[in-house]
Amino acid sequence: MTDINDLRLGALRAAYLSGAITPRALIAQLHARAQALNTHNCIFIHLLSLEQLEPYLAALEHQCPEALPLYGVPFAIKDNIDLAGVPTTAACPAFAYLPDRSATVVEQLLALGAVPLGKTNLDQFATGLNGTRSPYGASINSVHPSYPSGGSSAGSPLTVALGLCSFALGTDTAGSGRVPAALNNLVGLKASKGLISTAGVVPACRTLDCVTTFTHSAEEASQLLGWLARLDPRDEYSRHNPAWNNAQAFGQVQRFRFGVPLSQGLEFFGCSEGPGLFGAAVARLQAMGGEAVDIDLTPFLEAARLLYDGPWVAERYSVVGELIERQPSAVLPVIHQVLANAPATSAVAAFRAQYRLQHLKAECDRILAGLDCVVTPTLGRPVTLAELNAEPIKANAQLGYYTNFMNLLDYAAVAVPSGAMANGLPWGITLFGRCFTDQYLLSLAQAYSAQALPARAARHDRTRLVVCGAHLDGLALNWQLRQRNAVHLETTLSAPAYRLYALAGGPPQRPGMVRVGAAGVAIEVEVWELPSQELGSLLGEIPAPLGLGKVELSDGRWETGFICDGWGLEGAEDISRFGGWRAWLARESALG
Amino acid sequence: MTDINDLRLGALRAAYLSGAITPRALIAQLHARAQALNTHNCIFIHLLSLEQLEPYLAALEHQCPEALPLYGVPFAIKDNIDLAGVPTTAACPAFAYLPDRSATVVEQLLALGAVPLGKTNLDQFATGLNGTRSPYGASINSVHPSYPSGGSSAGSPLTVALGLCSFALGTDTAGSGRVPAALNNLVGLKASKGLISTAGVVPACRTLDCVTTFTHSAEEASQLLGWLARLDPRDEYSRHNPAWNNAQAFGQVQRFRFGVPLSQGLEFFGCSEGPGLFGAAVARLQAMGGEAVDIDLTPFLEAARLLYDGPWVAERYSVVGELIERQPSAVLPVIHQVLANAPATSAVAAFRAQYRLQHLKAECDRILAGLDCVVTPTLGRPVTLAELNAEPIKANAQLGYYTNFMNLLDYAAVAVPSGAMANGLPWGITLFGRCFTDQYLLSLAQAYSAQALPARAARHDRTRLVVCGAHLDGLALNWQLRQRNAVHLETTLSAPAYRLYALAGGPPQRPGMVRVGAAGVAIEVEVWELPSQELGSLLGEIPAPLGLGKVELSDGRWETGFICDGWGLEGAEDISRFGGWRAWLARESALG
Repeated sequence: MTDINDLRLGALRAAYLSGAITPRALIAQLHARAQALNTHNCIFIHLLSLEQLEPYLAALEHQCPEALPLYGVPFAIKDNIDLAGVPTTAACPAFAYLPDRSATVVEQLLALGAVPLGKTNLDQFATGLNGTRSPYGASINSVHPSYPSGGSSAGSPLTVALGLCSFALGTDTAGSGRVPAALNNLVGLKASKGLISTAGVVPACRTLDCVTTFTHSAEEASQLLGWLARLDPRDEYSRHNPAWNNAQAFGQVQRFRFGVPLSQGLEFFGCSEGPGLFGAAVARLQAMGGEAVDIDLTPFLEAARLLYDGPWVAERYSVVGELIERQPSAVLPVIHQVLANAPATSAVAAFRAQYRLQHLKAECDRILAGLDCVVTPTLGRPVTLAELNAEPIKANAQLGYYTNFMNLLDYAAVAVPSGAMANGLPWGITLFGRCFTDQYLLSLAQAYSAQALPARAARHDRTRLVVCGAHLDGLALNWQLRQRNAVHLETTLSAPAYRLYALAGGPPQRPGMVRVGAAGVAIEVEVWELPSQELGSLLGEIPAPLGLGKVELSDGRWETGFICDGWGLEGAEDISRFGGWRAWLARESALG
Repeated sequence: MTDINDLRLGALRAAYLSGAITPRALIAQLHARAQALNTHNCIFIHLLSLEQLEPYLAALEHQCPEALPLYGVPFAIKDNIDLAGVPTTAACPAFAYLPDRSATVVEQLLALGAVPLGKTNLDQFATGLNGTRSPYGASINSVHPSYPSGGSSAGSPLTVALGLCSFALGTDTAGSGRVPAALNNLVGLKASKGLISTAGVVPACRTLDCVTTFTHSAEEASQLLGWLARLDPRDEYSRHNPAWNNAQAFGQVQRFRFGVPLSQGLEFFGCSEGPGLFGAAVARLQAMGGEAVDIDLTPFLEAARLLYDGPWVAERYSVVGELIERQPSAVLPVIHQVLANAPATSAVAAFRAQYRLQHLKAECDRILAGLDCVVTPTLGRPVTLAELNAEPIKANAQLGYYTNFMNLLDYAAVAVPSGAMANGLPWGITLFGRCFTDQYLLSLAQAYSAQALPARAARHDRTRLVVCGAHLDGLALNWQLRQRNAVHLETTLSAPAYRLYALAGGPPQRPGMVRVGAAGVAIEVEVWELPSQELGSLLGEIPAPLGLGKVELSDGRWETGFICDGWGLEGAEDISRFGGWRAWLARESALG
């Protein structure tokens, strides 16, 4: 029996399919390793016993490895997410309960063949970003023992970083799925709210909570998201994932525009290595073909401050308030401190803060409108265990400087490893963007980690469209594009394989561009970009014989664009010699 | 100079363009009529003086009527919406202020050429549905003097019903734009939240408020919405209108499915005529081609109760609380009563109510998913002025039985006249549906009022798609439709004008359906329906030579469907003799 050290999804699957190992053998190895490591690192609140693991292993014996995409894949579950038959503590023994049903996300993973190794440590009630606020002990960083694992998902990243699991589940309300990813050299995906069900998860702030994944690579996070993003009737905050945001998507990333905070918005809290590490990350994104655009981070940071200074602490209090009132000593002093103002906060204040957030979101959305993503450091400054001990709230806040606004503003975010400090501690960046651009962000993150141009990238919430006639800039039907917030990317030529016809009928007069191969010429076209969700209704407004298909450009790209059904050429005039519709119109009006 | 009695947009425009009247002459007539009517009906809080009207009239003299779509069109403004230079009172003199800038919606209308006749009476702070809660007097119904105008937009509908204005602006948080429409025989459009800017409007509940229109016809409401639905940087609650939801849209309404509340959800509060009037309305919708579907109104009604029993009163209190505390007598006793619990409501309660609402919305959305719209009576029971005097809160609540849930649930709604009570009082229905289906609802409302089949109807947030190959039910690429929540509507034949080819390449094997005219045959196809916003990304997944265009069906309809670029037929096999892709596959597998 081989000792498997590479637990990444692809490698482990290959090992299973080749027969190099069985789930039973692997889990036995990992269980022993976990027991050994747990003592020092405080990874698990509840490591499953071999007896508790048995039913999962037995079930796999009746299954065909090929049929289950996560056959025998070990994973860990943050202990605010239910696993049926194992207590959920949220790191508060007095709060613990025994769920008889697993969280939806856990049910999904079990159905795909994954095996739960245990429930992991966390900052109590997922309130914290450091991993030390737990009666089960402080989770120690996987790389540098003077630092915490980060939190609130504290134990989950350790299981992946220390080779106990292929991936692990966390949650994220203010950065709890990203900060610990950065500190342990992992990819932390905080997908758009509502994509991964939160049914069966102890809420922190129900309007903001996300279930997250920790993986070694963005590619694995992309696969997991592809399987997990399903509308869940058990979760009223669940949202349908638009089809452009799925793992099967493809398409070349040619260029992208990424926002970079102006220096006055950057804050490293005296960490001298931060600016250089971040500068290198920006340069790496530029080398991938990204165009850096300065942005003002002020409204994002102002939104972030609403989370703990504003009424959202009342959401947390709605979960734990009853316990705090009944049994104050059951809850850690630091949690008392964070929630101190919550009970007295009024509904009026809650609504006013929501108005303020809405105002800030409109501002932030305008900044994001012209960008494909934004890059920031994942955390302001890594803080040591000693610093956390001395100033538990202040040190924690420094970790969350770049993460607290994300869920409030409804953005998608991926934390990606990006180098390390001189002392070896991992360092990372976060790529974030509009909700439902998760797979696009992951494709960029994967290319970033591979230090390569992204050869195949997920599609985006924007679609390019090649136009050659009345939709050209300034012409009769161009308003149909502008009405859809389309922007003009470039004017270029088709491949020299088309003929252009002035169709019979109108107004407005319309051309048909027809691919003919060697007898064709290059036609002047424009490439526009519009929100994917607006393209379908444009199609509705296009009369026969025209339609939308794929058009080849002079540089060999194939893009979505106007095509013309052959039967529509009856009575049409071949105007290819003009090289484009605009030139033909000019000749027409000169005649007129 | 003609006396103009028909102020509807089309008629008035024709009168201006023909030179039958000028804005100056019309406004003078209307101003005099308004002064006369105002005494009895309490329509206006501030009727503009001739001097105040002069700048608007003078400006029009330099304008070409053809260039301004609302040239010289008189309109009224509910007095919680700012008109620069005229006090905004919200029906509370102590609250009044003098705005130096008009509300965005007013600025839009003025720029289109409309002329503001005055600021209209309302239930104080738009809190009420009856029109009697005003220190400026109770607004009297335009048809029956024992009844109120309805509110909170009380004076605005009177200006339209009594022939003083072409249209009027109201607001709607809980029914204030629909109840008074029903009581005065008008169309009241409460468009999807965020389509018409609320910048410059005194908030009732900022998260719920909508600006509404009162018109004689749904067609006019559709035109107004087409002009007004613009993203407004002044209003953080403003939302982009998807292109499918605009007035230029077209397409045949062939069939529609409308929800009808089960009888246990219907409540007429003892009004014996209600059931018959509602039954007639349902029959009329069926006669238009609608299929009635029973629905359970329970979750809608439960959401409605959150509005006044829950923390949303704190939103109102955030606007008027300061005045109430400083000068209690400045605010009507009934408003005090409505807001009594607001100051003591906690943020915890506010969030918990939002969770409950989210849960109910998920339930209601599931009910709406299979429907094109829902029909209800607009109000539970019309109440008399005497009844309101006796029981101001109870009688008011009976008016709002069917309207209170709409804004909370983020639906679009149109109140449409539908007959009258035996005593002559107008009666009406409301058609409501998912947000951003406003123009579709208006097209149904227009057809309903015309008692005709809707010949041309706005498009919808759903799109039909004709498939003929690998996307057919159960075949290799059908998952691309199902992933987008598409539903199979029918299996039918194309017009006998196509040939079907098995294209070279694959897997999956794909056919090309090519229109050839007389040499063609009928091909078996399926019609599917999917959310419009998901169609664009499907297009991205369709490889050349295939695309989407228009396909003719055997009954003469042209629908969006798969087309094939002519060049792609190289190496293809003509399989038209099989009559469809499925039959050819069956033959293929029989051979294989």
